[in-house]
Amino acid sequence: MERKDQNMPFLLRYENVAWYEDGKVRILDRRIFPTEVRFVECKTYQEVRQAIADMVTQSAGPYTAVGMGMALAAWQVRGEAKEKQISFLQQAAYDLAHARPTTANRYGQITFRAAELAEAALEEGRDPIDAIVTSTVDSLNRRYSTMQIVGNYLAELIPQGGSILTQCFGETIIGTLIRASREQGKDFRVYCAETRPYLQGARLTSSCFAEMGFETTVLTDNMIAYAMQNEGIDLFTSAADSIARDGHIANKIGTFQIAILAKYFGIPYYVTGIPDREKYSRDDIVIEMRDPDQVLRYRGIPNCLPQVKAIYPSFDIVPPHLISGAVTDKGVYVPYLLDSYFDGEARTFY
Amino acid sequence: MERKDQNMPFLLRYENVAWYEDGKVRILDRRIFPTEVRFVECKTYQEVRQAIADMVTQSAGPYTAVGMGMALAAWQVRGEAKEKQISFLQQAAYDLAHARPTTANRYGQITFRAAELAEAALEEGRDPIDAIVTSTVDSLNRRYSTMQIVGNYLAELIPQGGSILTQCFGETIIGTLIRASREQGKDFRVYCAETRPYLQGARLTSSCFAEMGFETTVLTDNMIAYAMQNEGIDLFTSAADSIARDGHIANKIGTFQIAILAKYFGIPYYVTGIPDREKYSRDDIVIEMRDPDQVLRYRGIPNCLPQVKAIYPSFDIVPPHLISGAVTDKGVYVPYLLDSYFDGEARTFY
Repeated sequence: MERKDQNMPFLLRYENVAWYEDGKVRILDRRIFPTEVRFVECKTYQEVRQAIADMVTQSAGPYTAVGMGMALAAWQVRGEAKEKQISFLQQAAYDLAHARPTTANRYGQITFRAAELAEAALEEGRDPIDAIVTSTVDSLNRRYSTMQIVGNYLAELIPQGGSILTQCFGETIIGTLIRASREQGKDFRVYCAETRPYLQGARLTSSCFAEMGFETTVLTDNMIAYAMQNEGIDLFTSAADSIARDGHIANKIGTFQIAILAKYFGIPYYVTGIPDREKYSRDDIVIEMRDPDQVLRYRGIPNCLPQVKAIYPSFDIVPPHLISGAVTDKGVYVPYLLDSYFDGEARTFY
Repeated sequence: MERKDQNMPFLLRYENVAWYEDGKVRILDRRIFPTEVRFVECKTYQEVRQAIADMVTQSAGPYTAVGMGMALAAWQVRGEAKEKQISFLQQAAYDLAHARPTTANRYGQITFRAAELAEAALEEGRDPIDAIVTSTVDSLNRRYSTMQIVGNYLAELIPQGGSILTQCFGETIIGTLIRASREQGKDFRVYCAETRPYLQGARLTSSCFAEMGFETTVLTDNMIAYAMQNEGIDLFTSAADSIARDGHIANKIGTFQIAILAKYFGIPYYVTGIPDREKYSRDDIVIEMRDPDQVLRYRGIPNCLPQVKAIYPSFDIVPPHLISGAVTDKGVYVPYLLDSYFDGEARTFY
């Protein structure tokens, strides 16, 4: 398991993200990291699904968690009749895939593949749990290999000694960018937008970059224009929870306005990731509305009188005219031409 | 004292802002309101100065606090020789005025006037404390009368049944806007930007509007573009800590980027307040840099690893091209023409 790599930040090591062992899945509780390092222990796949819905883990964390959740589902029905096991795993695959709406397609790719492999294992008299864990780790490794190419491209776009601004916590690109930067001998400063209400930027992104020796500065979400004007930001980059073929992307709430500000200040914005084959336009992107109570509080402390309301859209959508380039494993695309990613012959502009 | 008005929100009643009585100044601790209602008790003017520097009170709160702090200074030297009292009060006036750099001129107008009146009282054998308290309340009342005109203009600009977006906590304009809206029979929804790191919007502005019956919704600072696109914001308005004669204004960090977003979405931005006679351009505006630790924590809970840095510029500067109008007591000005406010004959465009 190549990611059991002590040269990666703590947060990005597989075994710290989510791990199946002996009828339990242990998930690092990102809601309190790095203030506290604590794991949530799930004894059913339903608890894994709930943990994902509650954002115990997020970003790419659920890709590991749903796979490990499938292993747990297989544990839950061990010893039952084969047909029962198969139908239970099908149900688990569906349930885990739908833990959060915006990324159901991506989770489903992992869970239905796991169910398929488990079925094959059962047919052949092998242990379905082993098959699922192995396939989960394999799929993560494949994802990391693909995303390493993206990380290599992104590292090349960053000026030596420059400064980048990040939004939220795009864990795979952070890991692969850090690795690529080391290989390219590239150093840069990182400004992390805090990313309320969950504070992914302040807590998770800053921890990864700081741990790996990058000069790291946190900005509250209202300091972006100030920092662009006064701190010498060379480039804004974010991951995406969804990249549609027409160049619209969905990412953590706030990405849209940072993209507007980047355009105002003439700072390039590069989104990273793999386009979603089945999403043709912004109309195919579902924005998850989360419990607004999270906006009205912070770590349990209420900020507001009881009659005050809030909204909590998890994501917003950035239109292609605000995106300078989409950095994919096939190169850097003009966002309007992203559809050509699926052409077979990729038309890259990098 | 007209503001001892039960029709005003709790936060805006003089006696809840800062009050001198019997050798003490009691200041409402806005750092924890409305989660807790607690007062900081100061026994010296130096403690009042420190409370202002620590943002126990902020927005227009220090206007009351520095006046009441002068009364406390007079208490501290009561019974001393007249010359000693006068020089002590001069020192107190200077110290209190410089509790925070961006608004030293405004605080100084109150404190040096208080010192002057105290001196006159001493010359005439009257109680200097009485003179200072009376003059502080008089000056607040004058300010409120002037700002009531601004509030009236602003209320007229808001469409009936519409929605406004606010930034930070402009307490005087909030009080006078609420009063004007009642008189004009105008109702509207209020969206409050949370305003990290101190959360003035989430905690203070939302409390005032919600208490007075307005439908009030809090947005984290990264939801502004989303809300402008999806929630039907008709108008963005903010107070200003400084309004220069060339149309640049300084206000709480984040105002600059909201103004950029308002321009992007075609939403008018009205800044409210009285231009600063002695500030000719943005070069005359001092931006206070506060302790970045406040950005790295929230209400005592650390968010980041120890090696992570932060910046905390208290304010940012909005250029006139992003301001639709400056709402003053003499009318609504084109920001480029604000200098004419001081012409004697005001050139108003409203």
